[in-house]
Amino acid sequence: MQITVVGGGSWGTAFSCLLRDRGHRVTLACRDAHQVRAIEETGRNPRYLTTANLRGVDAAVIDDAPYDVDVIVLAVPSRAFADVAASLPGTAPVLSLTKGLDPATGQRLSTRVTGRPVAVLSGPNMAEELAEGLPSAAVIASEDRALADELQHAINSIVFRVYVNEDLVGVELCAAAKNVIALAAGGVDGLGLGDNAKASVITRGLVEMARLGEAFGAQPETFSGLAGMGDLIVTCFSGYGRNRRAGDLIARGHSADEAAAEIGQVVEGLTTAPVLRDLSHRAGVELPITEGVCSVLAGEDLQGLLGRLMGRRPTEE
Amino acid sequence: MQITVVGGGSWGTAFSCLLRDRGHRVTLACRDAHQVRAIEETGRNPRYLTTANLRGVDAAVIDDAPYDVDVIVLAVPSRAFADVAASLPGTAPVLSLTKGLDPATGQRLSTRVTGRPVAVLSGPNMAEELAEGLPSAAVIASEDRALADELQHAINSIVFRVYVNEDLVGVELCAAAKNVIALAAGGVDGLGLGDNAKASVITRGLVEMARLGEAFGAQPETFSGLAGMGDLIVTCFSGYGRNRRAGDLIARGHSADEAAAEIGQVVEGLTTAPVLRDLSHRAGVELPITEGVCSVLAGEDLQGLLGRLMGRRPTEE
Repeated sequence: MQITVVGGGSWGTAFSCLLRDRGHRVTLACRDAHQVRAIEETGRNPRYLTTANLRGVDAAVIDDAPYDVDVIVLAVPSRAFADVAASLPGTAPVLSLTKGLDPATGQRLSTRVTGRPVAVLSGPNMAEELAEGLPSAAVIASEDRALADELQHAINSIVFRVYVNEDLVGVELCAAAKNVIALAAGGVDGLGLGDNAKASVITRGLVEMARLGEAFGAQPETFSGLAGMGDLIVTCFSGYGRNRRAGDLIARGHSADEAAAEIGQVVEGLTTAPVLRDLSHRAGVELPITEGVCSVLAGEDLQGLLGRLMGRRPTEE
Repeated sequence: MQITVVGGGSWGTAFSCLLRDRGHRVTLACRDAHQVRAIEETGRNPRYLTTANLRGVDAAVIDDAPYDVDVIVLAVPSRAFADVAASLPGTAPVLSLTKGLDPATGQRLSTRVTGRPVAVLSGPNMAEELAEGLPSAAVIASEDRALADELQHAINSIVFRVYVNEDLVGVELCAAAKNVIALAAGGVDGLGLGDNAKASVITRGLVEMARLGEAFGAQPETFSGLAGMGDLIVTCFSGYGRNRRAGDLIARGHSADEAAAEIGQVVEGLTTAPVLRDLSHRAGVELPITEGVCSVLAGEDLQGLLGRLMGRRPTEE
C-alpha cells in the first residue's frame, strides 16, 4: 500500500516505522520544513521519538505530501484534527490515531471526516515501546467493515497484533476519556497515595467511561477491551504516559501550563477534560472523576477534593 | 465488636490494625507461640509486615484464641483454609480475606465454612500500603445481606472504604484468578516485553476471569469492580505484589520453588493455577492465559509459548 501519515509527533513517527516494516510505501507528513529536512538527512525525527529509525520512510511538509494514496493516517493533536481532516484533498480513506474529542463541537473526531471512509485505531500503544520493537496490540473500528478488514490485514504483524472491533463510538470515547482518568491517576501518584488508591481510581474511572459510552450507544465490551481497559492501564502506569505525568506534576503544585511545558508534547487530557465534562452534561451522565479533574484544573485544592470524596458514605459498589 | 483474626501473615496483621483503629477489640491468632510472644513483647509481627504497629492488638496461638466473638476473620493460606474453618468452635460469623480456591475440592473457599454465616472481603489491598496509613477500598460480599451491612458499618473508615456487593461467587472467583493472571503479567516484566504487552495480558486476563465467572453465575459488573479489575491492577503493578514478582523470577529462569523461596511468603497463584485450570475444564470454559501459566509451571519454555500466542491469526476482539 501507499500510505501518508499526517503528524510528526511520537505516535505518527512510530506508526510510520511499523507500516514501513510491513512493506508499505510511507510518507510522514510534518508541519515544519525543518523537521522534514532533518528526517531526510538523518533518518531521525529531530523533535519527537528521536530514537526511532525512519530510514525508508519519506518525509514531506503537510501541503506537499501525496494524498492520492491507499490510506491517509491522521496522527495530529485533537485540536488540529477537524481542520486537517477538512483540508485533505481526494477521497482516500482515513485511519485516525488521534485520541480526543473535537474541542469546537465536542463531537467524536471521526465525525469530522466527511466524503470518505473512516476508521480509528486504538489500544495500549506507547510509541516509545513500539519504536524499541516491543510487542503490542490494538483494535481498528469502523462502520465500513471492509475497510477495517483491509487495514487489519495491512497493519497486523508479529509485533503489532490488530483486532477488529465494530464499535466505533466506544473506541473513540475510550480513547478520549482515558487521558482524563490518567490525569487523576497521576494525581494519586503525585500525592504519594499508593497503588491501592491508584487502582481504585482507575477502576472507578473505567466505570464512568463505560457509563458515558452506554449513553451514546457504545458496546460495554469495548470498555473492557484493548481500547478501553488496555489503553487506560498503560496510560496510567507507563513511565512514558504524558497524561499521568501531567497529573503527577499538577498534584505536586505545578499549574497545567507548567506541566505541559515541562512535558514538551501535547497532553491531550488537558484539552479533553472540559470537552468531555460538557459532553456528559448534555448527555445527563455523571462523571465524578472527570468533574474532579476539571475542578482541579480550574483551581480547586486537590487535598480538599480528596477529603470530600473519601468522606462520602459508601454504598453498594 | 470483639473480633479474632486468624492468620499472622501480612494481610492478617494489617487488617488487625485497621480493626483496632476502628475501635474494635482484636485478637490476632497465629500458628507459632514464638510469633505470639514477639507481638506481645515488641508490638511487632516478627516475620511479616514488621513495620506495622500492633500495640493494642492481643495475640494468641490459634488453639487458645477466643472464638465466641462477634466475627472471626480468616486470613490463612488457601491450602489451610478448609481445615481451619472446619475446626472453629462456636457459631460466630466468618469474614474471609483469603484469596484462592480450596485445593482439595476446587471449590470456592466460602463453601468450606458451614454452620455459620460467611462473608468475603476483597479489593486492591496491598497490606504494606495499608500499614503505612495509605487509603484503599474493598468490597464485602455475602449471601447474608444483614451480615454484609453490619461488617461494612464496622470496618469502613476514612482510609478504608468498604462497599457491599451481593455477588459472592464473582468476588471469590476474582480473588482466586487474579493471582494467576499476575503470574503471567510478572512473566511479561521478567522478559522485558514492556507495558503495552503487560496491559494487553492483563486486559485479556480479566476477559478470561469474567468468562469463568459467567459460567458459574457471577455478575459481570463484579469483574469490572474493585474486587476484579481493581485488585488485578494492583496485584500486577505494585512493587509489593508477590505473584507478579514470582512470575518475573520464573521468566528470568528460576523454578517456581526457587521463586517462592526467594519471596518468603505464600504465593497463592502457584497453588491456585492448576486448581483453576481443572475447574475451567469441568465447566467447559477456555482460559488461555491460565493454561499458559500452568504449561510454564509444568516446564514449557516461555519464549516458545509467547511465539505461539503472538503468531496466532488475529480476529475480532
